[in-house]
Amino acid sequence: MSVFNVELIKTVDDSYQIETGYDLAQKLVEDLKNGLVGNISKFAVITDDIVKNLYADNIANLLSENGFNVKVYSFKNGEKSKTRATKEYIEDAMLADGLRRDCCIIAVGGGVVTDIAGFIAGTYGRGVPFINYATTLLAAADASVGGKTAVDTPLATNLIGIFNQPKKVYIDIAAWATLEQRQLYSGMAETIKHACLADREMFDYIAENIDKIYSFDKEACNYIAEKNCRIKYSVVMKDERESGLREILNLGHTVGRAAETVSGYKLLHGEAVSIGLCAQAKLSQKMGYMTAQEVEKTVELLKKACLPVTLPEYIDKAELVKKLYTDKKVRNGKLRFVLQNGIGDVVRFGENVYATPVSEDIAREIINML
Amino acid sequence: MSVFNVELIKTVDDSYQIETGYDLAQKLVEDLKNGLVGNISKFAVITDDIVKNLYADNIANLLSENGFNVKVYSFKNGEKSKTRATKEYIEDAMLADGLRRDCCIIAVGGGVVTDIAGFIAGTYGRGVPFINYATTLLAAADASVGGKTAVDTPLATNLIGIFNQPKKVYIDIAAWATLEQRQLYSGMAETIKHACLADREMFDYIAENIDKIYSFDKEACNYIAEKNCRIKYSVVMKDERESGLREILNLGHTVGRAAETVSGYKLLHGEAVSIGLCAQAKLSQKMGYMTAQEVEKTVELLKKACLPVTLPEYIDKAELVKKLYTDKKVRNGKLRFVLQNGIGDVVRFGENVYATPVSEDIAREIINML
Repeated sequence: MSVFNVELIKTVDDSYQIETGYDLAQKLVEDLKNGLVGNISKFAVITDDIVKNLYADNIANLLSENGFNVKVYSFKNGEKSKTRATKEYIEDAMLADGLRRDCCIIAVGGGVVTDIAGFIAGTYGRGVPFINYATTLLAAADASVGGKTAVDTPLATNLIGIFNQPKKVYIDIAAWATLEQRQLYSGMAETIKHACLADREMFDYIAENIDKIYSFDKEACNYIAEKNCRIKYSVVMKDERESGLREILNLGHTVGRAAETVSGYKLLHGEAVSIGLCAQAKLSQKMGYMTAQEVEKTVELLKKACLPVTLPEYIDKAELVKKLYTDKKVRNGKLRFVLQNGIGDVVRFGENVYATPVSEDIAREIINML
Repeated sequence: MSVFNVELIKTVDDSYQIETGYDLAQKLVEDLKNGLVGNISKFAVITDDIVKNLYADNIANLLSENGFNVKVYSFKNGEKSKTRATKEYIEDAMLADGLRRDCCIIAVGGGVVTDIAGFIAGTYGRGVPFINYATTLLAAADASVGGKTAVDTPLATNLIGIFNQPKKVYIDIAAWATLEQRQLYSGMAETIKHACLADREMFDYIAENIDKIYSFDKEACNYIAEKNCRIKYSVVMKDERESGLREILNLGHTVGRAAETVSGYKLLHGEAVSIGLCAQAKLSQKMGYMTAQEVEKTVELLKKACLPVTLPEYIDKAELVKKLYTDKKVRNGKLRFVLQNGIGDVVRFGENVYATPVSEDIAREIINML
C-alpha cells in the first residue's frame, strides 16, 4: 500500500474586458489583430438562424476580408435549441471542417447562443478560447458576467454545463434596435431584477427612463448596460462557484424557471422571470420583508416595462408547484426562495445563505394569486 | 462606448492523493467518513456492465451499509461506449433520480469509465466532485494523473472533453487479477510507453519481471503502479494544458489512435498503442534517433508483454495513413510524431516542442513495414 501526492496548485487569470458601444464588429477585428487570442487564425462563429442574417454573416465577412479563416455555424433561434443535440450538431460540423484545438469560437447572439457556444468552447478539444458578441439586452444583462454556460435537458434547465470565462465580451447596443419588441421587453426583466436585489437608485432610474431605454437613447442604454455589469460582477467576484452570495442572482428564478419549463418555452425567459419577480415580492410581503407598497412599486415597474405580472391561463398551476422541486436551490426536498428585503436589497437567511425555506402550502398560495 | 474590466485572478488547489493497494473499498468508506468530499451524502457510482458485477455493486453496498445514499449507473463495457450518447443516458438517469449539485460521482472501472465519469462530473450541475476507483492496469497507468476526460465522436477520439481533477484516486491491484488476459496485456502498453519515453531502468525492470507482473506479484505491481504515477506526474505538473512537454505522453499514439479508430475498436487501446510504439521506434531509427538494436529491444519487450507489434491484416493501410491527419498534433496540415531518442528519452524538436514533422511518404513507408 502506497500513497502518491499529486500537487496541483496554480494561479489562474481569467480576467477579461466588457466593451459596450455601437457596431463593434470593426473593434473586434482590431482586437484580434492586436492579439486578443494570440496568433489563432481559425474562427468558428456560432449563432442562430435569425442573428445569422442580421449580424453574424456580416461579422464573419469582415473577419474574412481581414485575412482570418472563418466558418459560420447556426441553429434554430430560441431556448428550445439549447440542448445537448444542438451542441453535438455544431461540434460535428466543426470537426468535419477540420477545426481542432487551434481555433477560437465567437458567439454572436443572445443568451441562448452565448450559453451554448461557451459550453462548446469549454469542451471542444478540452477547451478553446471564446469571445461573446452579445446582441440582446438579455445577453448584456445576464450572460456577460459570471461565466455560466449550459444546455437544458428534458428534466431541467441549465443543469448540464460548465463555468467558462470568455476572452472578451462586446455589448452592441445598436443590435437591440433590431430585436422584436417582445424580445426586447423580455431582456429588461434581468435588468429590473438587478435593480430589485441591489440598487434602489437604478430601480428609480429605470422607472423614470423606461421610454428612453425602449427608444435606444444612448445615455440610458449605456447606463443600464454598465449597471448590469457592475452589479453582477460585484456578486460573482465574491462567489464564482455559486456556493452562497451568488444565489441572490436567482431572485425571481424559482417560479420563473418553473413557469418557463411548464409553458413549454412559450414564455420567454425574461417574461417568466418577470412573473417570478412578482411571485417572490408577494412572498416577501407575506413573510414580512416587504410592504404592500413596495410590492406594488415592483409590480408597477414590470408592467411599465411591458412585462407580464401574472401567469398565462394555459399554465397548470398544480404542475407548476410540482416543477418547483427541480430548482437547484432545493435542499433535502425543501423549497427555498431568494426574497427581497424592500427594494434594492435581499433577505439574508443565515451566514452566507440567501435562500429562505418556504413551505409548499405558502408557495401554492402565492402561485394561486398570480 | 465604455469598457468594464472583469478581474478574475485566483489560486486553485486541485491537489489529490493516489492510493495504491489491495481491496481498497473499505479505505474509500473511511476516507468519505473522514470528509474526503465534505459532508456530501449522495453518491452516483458510474461503472460498466462487467465491472458492475465484479466490483461496483459491492462498493455501492458497502457505502449503503455505512449510511451513504448510493445509486449505481452502468453502461456497456468497451471503448465503443465512450460517446456523448452514453454521457447523456447517465445524466438523464441521474437527473431522474433527483440528483442535483449536492452529489459526488465515484467512477469504478477502467479508463473508459474514468474518462466518461470525470467528464460527466465536470458538467453535471456545472461541476460536482468525483473519485476514481481504478480497476485496470491501463487506468492506473493512464487515467490516474493528468485530469484528461473525454468522449469519442464518429470523426475522432477524445476531442470532446474537459480537464477535470478527481478528489482522490484508488488503484486496486487486486482487481487486475479479474481482468481478461487480453485486457491486462493491453494495459501494459501505456506502462511500457512510460519506460520508453522517460526511464531506461524501468524498461529493464519490466523486461526482467514481466512474468511477475502478469502473475500479480505485489512488489512488481506496486513498482510499476508507482513508476507510472511518478513519470506521468513529472510531465503533467510542468504542462497541465498539453501545450508542450505533455505531448511526449503521445508517444506511440499517432499511429496508435488512428489504428484503433480504423480497426473499428477491434484493437484495444493498448494493443493499438503497442503497434504505434513500434511505428515510432522504426521512424526514430529512420530519422537517426535510435539504433537498430534499440528498436529491436523495444519490439522484443512489447512481444514479451504479449502485445501485437504489427498491424492486423484487416487494417486498410491507405485509410490508416489518411486517418493520421485527424491527430491533434497536426499543424497546418502537416503530420507530427513524438519520437524516441534511444530508450528512456524523447526527441526535442525545438524549444518546448516535442513533436517532429514527418512527411506523408515516410509515414506511409513505415506503416507499410508494420
